[in-house]
Amino acid sequence: MHCPITQAIRDKWNRKTKPEGSLGRLESLARRVGQIQGTDNPQVREKRICVFAADHGVTAEGVSAFPKAVTREMVANFQSGGAAINVLAKEGGIDLAIVDVGIDGDFDSWIKNSPKFYHRKVGEGTRNLAKEPAMTVNECAQAMEAGREQARHANRDGVDIIGIGEMGIGNSSSAAALFAALFSIPVQEIVGRGTGIDEAILAQKQSVVRQAVARHSEVNQVFLPQTWLAEIGGFEIAAMAGLIVEAAHLNMPVVVDGFISTAAAAAAFELTPETRAVCFFSHISTETGHRVVLDRLGADPILDLEMRLGEGTGAALAIPILQAATRLLADMATFESAGVSNIIPSGN
Amino acid sequence: MHCPITQAIRDKWNRKTKPEGSLGRLESLARRVGQIQGTDNPQVREKRICVFAADHGVTAEGVSAFPKAVTREMVANFQSGGAAINVLAKEGGIDLAIVDVGIDGDFDSWIKNSPKFYHRKVGEGTRNLAKEPAMTVNECAQAMEAGREQARHANRDGVDIIGIGEMGIGNSSSAAALFAALFSIPVQEIVGRGTGIDEAILAQKQSVVRQAVARHSEVNQVFLPQTWLAEIGGFEIAAMAGLIVEAAHLNMPVVVDGFISTAAAAAAFELTPETRAVCFFSHISTETGHRVVLDRLGADPILDLEMRLGEGTGAALAIPILQAATRLLADMATFESAGVSNIIPSGN
Repeated sequence: MHCPITQAIRDKWNRKTKPEGSLGRLESLARRVGQIQGTDNPQVREKRICVFAADHGVTAEGVSAFPKAVTREMVANFQSGGAAINVLAKEGGIDLAIVDVGIDGDFDSWIKNSPKFYHRKVGEGTRNLAKEPAMTVNECAQAMEAGREQARHANRDGVDIIGIGEMGIGNSSSAAALFAALFSIPVQEIVGRGTGIDEAILAQKQSVVRQAVARHSEVNQVFLPQTWLAEIGGFEIAAMAGLIVEAAHLNMPVVVDGFISTAAAAAAFELTPETRAVCFFSHISTETGHRVVLDRLGADPILDLEMRLGEGTGAALAIPILQAATRLLADMATFESAGVSNIIPSGN
Repeated sequence: MHCPITQAIRDKWNRKTKPEGSLGRLESLARRVGQIQGTDNPQVREKRICVFAADHGVTAEGVSAFPKAVTREMVANFQSGGAAINVLAKEGGIDLAIVDVGIDGDFDSWIKNSPKFYHRKVGEGTRNLAKEPAMTVNECAQAMEAGREQARHANRDGVDIIGIGEMGIGNSSSAAALFAALFSIPVQEIVGRGTGIDEAILAQKQSVVRQAVARHSEVNQVFLPQTWLAEIGGFEIAAMAGLIVEAAHLNMPVVVDGFISTAAAAAAFELTPETRAVCFFSHISTETGHRVVLDRLGADPILDLEMRLGEGTGAALAIPILQAATRLLADMATFESAGVSNIIPSGN
């Protein structure tokens, strides 16, 4: 397919004062942002990360290193500005929006009334996906809508790029189950240590994920992505998938965070194949299986800093790289404008 | 060796509201900055990149894709703000200092009188290292002093971290020769396409590098790093090595750029082993052989963005990552301060 924007950006790069292709991935990243935004002058000026938080019934199975209360406590920490994502967003000049899409428990009014906090509870956490469907298809649609809404808000606010992140004790079990189901990956290759569980809990987590995938496969003979997302997903995962679907519709680039966010991207790709074109994968996490699923998705992550924190922290570090790429494309001088000699014509 | 600062920083990270170790390399990078700066409260606030530029007599052998004049033209481009390094330094809030340590030709007075431009010419380019020593040992010492001076200036100006970069048509031949000599790496594994040469020029470049290493090995039976640096190095490579040596003396972290800068680091490590402790390798370049030499040096580059531009561009992208790491260490809340529950004690 001939794309005039792609060609225009290639030409633009090749006039810049540098050896051809020498900016490597920065050149292709800026090109992709341009393709998504539909311009040869792509912009990464207004940046936002949306962090979706929810609880998971599967924590009843003892699959996590941290108690479930940490989901709510960490969201309060986001609002106080003390979490890793706060520090990184501030460093990168990135706006933060926090969406409670189903945390168990309530917040103080100073949090609930904060302008960047969205109270979009679908429930007080999902049901236990090891034993029953995590949510109904209707609840799943409601959670997805909470994500779509954020994409629309970002678009309305002139945001150039949206990062996604999450908080939800138990959600690496849900993400692993989704990957196992979507890609038929053996459970032991996809279930990892999450926030840091020991051998005994790891074995338990594997067994829970195996159970969830088996239970669901029995009930649903035909694969339908939205059914899977409801059966073994999480509210925050569905919300991120919804955001991606809507962002694709609005031609907005999305920066995917780590293991859990990648599950949302994988679900979005199944639901709407056009979403592939708008997603950037920020980093490869050390969570077991992230490499396998990134390979399956044909994703080429921007960073490898051996992180496994979530919250959107990988996205917050990759967005400045995308910003740098677009600024280079916009602001570098050309051989002509700078009076720099170009390559020596070769006899070959 | 027990290091109280290392331990203090480890403890500090482990009190932060995140799973232990989940910030991956950001944790170890901040720890290393702290070790160098001698504090458990490391800072990356004031940042500077010093770009050293010089010409190379070896260009007479036809080893480059670009004409030699480009060294001078690109330095003028640096001063006008149109080069990749200008855009990235501005994005990262990084100061730039440009040092003419031996460019062939002179500059307009507006450039010469610019406050961040240093006229420290050792000569009008090195001699042709394929035929004779590139410089005398005295010239090498003078070039190194131009680098040491920049480390002292940075220290005087309260700079927390220094990046190094270079501009010099022909300098990938010199760097390859240095690596071949220092590490006994076969020439075909270390000679790459630099700014983008074709097969014919690549063969010529390999032959030139082979010649240079052979000539020098014959003359000097005993390996002395400074002799090598003079015989087959470049003024800007010697200057960067000098900067690293002085920075180690002043306990200042140095961020090494790509293939050419790594040659300076390798030389510095040979001259003063303590320099190893202060160097961060910003990225792995696509230049042939960079991976091999990074492995030999035991270096673990921060980024892999398939770049091969030089100028300090890799350093300019890695410095914000180091800054983010130190800010996280300084500003994240602790479990205690944020009222977040810690890990569930396990029976195991």
